Amino acid sequence: MSKTIEFYFDFSSPYGYFASAKIDSLAEKYHRSVIWKPMLIGAAFQQTGAKPMVDIPLKGEYCRHDWQRMSLNMDVPWALPDPFLITAVAPGRVFYWLEDQDSVLAKQYAKNAYRAYFVNGQNISEPDVAIDIAVALGVSQEAVCHALQDNTIKERFKQETPDAITLGVFGSPFIFVDGEGFWGSDRMWMVKKKLQQSKW
Amino acid sequence: MSKTIEFYFDFSSPYGYFASAKIDSLAEKYHRSVIWKPMLIGAAFQQTGAKPMVDIPLKGEYCRHDWQRMSLNMDVPWALPDPFLITAVAPGRVFYWLEDQDSVLAKQYAKNAYRAYFVNGQNISEPDVAIDIAVALGVSQEAVCHALQDNTIKERFKQETPDAITLGVFGSPFIFVDGEGFWGSDRMWMVKKKLQQSKW
Repeated sequence: MSKTIEFYFDFSSPYGYFASAKIDSLAEKYHRSVIWKPMLIGAAFQQTGAKPMVDIPLKGEYCRHDWQRMSLNMDVPWALPDPFLITAVAPGRVFYWLEDQDSVLAKQYAKNAYRAYFVNGQNISEPDVAIDIAVALGVSQEAVCHALQDNTIKERFKQETPDAITLGVFGSPFIFVDGEGFWGSDRMWMVKKKLQQSKW
Repeated sequence: MSKTIEFYFDFSSPYGYFASAKIDSLAEKYHRSVIWKPMLIGAAFQQTGAKPMVDIPLKGEYCRHDWQRMSLNMDVPWALPDPFLITAVAPGRVFYWLEDQDSVLAKQYAKNAYRAYFVNGQNISEPDVAIDIAVALGVSQEAVCHALQDNTIKERFKQETPDAITLGVFGSPFIFVDGEGFWGSDRMWMVKKKLQQSKW
């Protein structure tokens, strides 16, 4: 069984979205698989006092431009959604419910949910939207509706955020290689170096 | 006369220090010269509500580790100074005073001041230390002492910070290529792409 990388992200995070488009192919080059870990970064922001960048003077304007050029530089499609930000509970619950059954399908769900939000502008925090993305992957609508209300699933997703904070996660994306954390989509170069060094 | 890049930084900023070790050689590859612009990033932090990362829960611990690995990954010497942070008024004043006479000398002064702080742990916010670094470059001690108290120099350095904020600077380092801003030492890859694209 290959060693893993852990990829923490918030479904509402643009930089999480950009990193998500590259993390699997980067890991594959070093014979690693990636465990995707959606969470709600807002709870970490409460601990660090951080605010969403888009709401901050100077930074907000910088970000809007930055996401457009990230899209061009990384060759990843992008359109600023409205509403932005969202609290992405529904896709998080669907993701972990799927993951318990089929981790490949769960990852495809996450990719489709990110694209639905950051390319097609669909509000994936709305349960119906989160459900439809699963149904489009061949999942039973009844089963996913039921899962969204299941207390075990609710608790499972809820617990991911404090667990991540315990590991040191304070932003999205946050990538762990052999327990060492890397914050931000700008750190792919350092993640790559780490993977090269720990190859053997 | 070659086109320029503007490099904004705070003498107390670790990421500014790391970027300062690479920015000139990167620019040279694309036949650009770099205008170094020390400022006090604290005033920008007041506008954005940012705090120094090192004081923030979770982020502080991350940073301490991150600076060490930046040093290894970028091959730039590093030792966390004490005290950290400092308000680097003295080296800022000396820098602009020198720049009015000799921009090459001023840049060498900035590099030496950065190394004095982040390699040798000297408190460059102390006027005597800031002066000694200039004297070691062959500058008259009397002249630099006088300059540090000169109202024109004081005003010159003071004005750099609001001028930078007006341009959108909210962190250190902040690099402008043809008016487009790039925040952070992690953005060298994108600065490079921008320079490649605007080559002709």
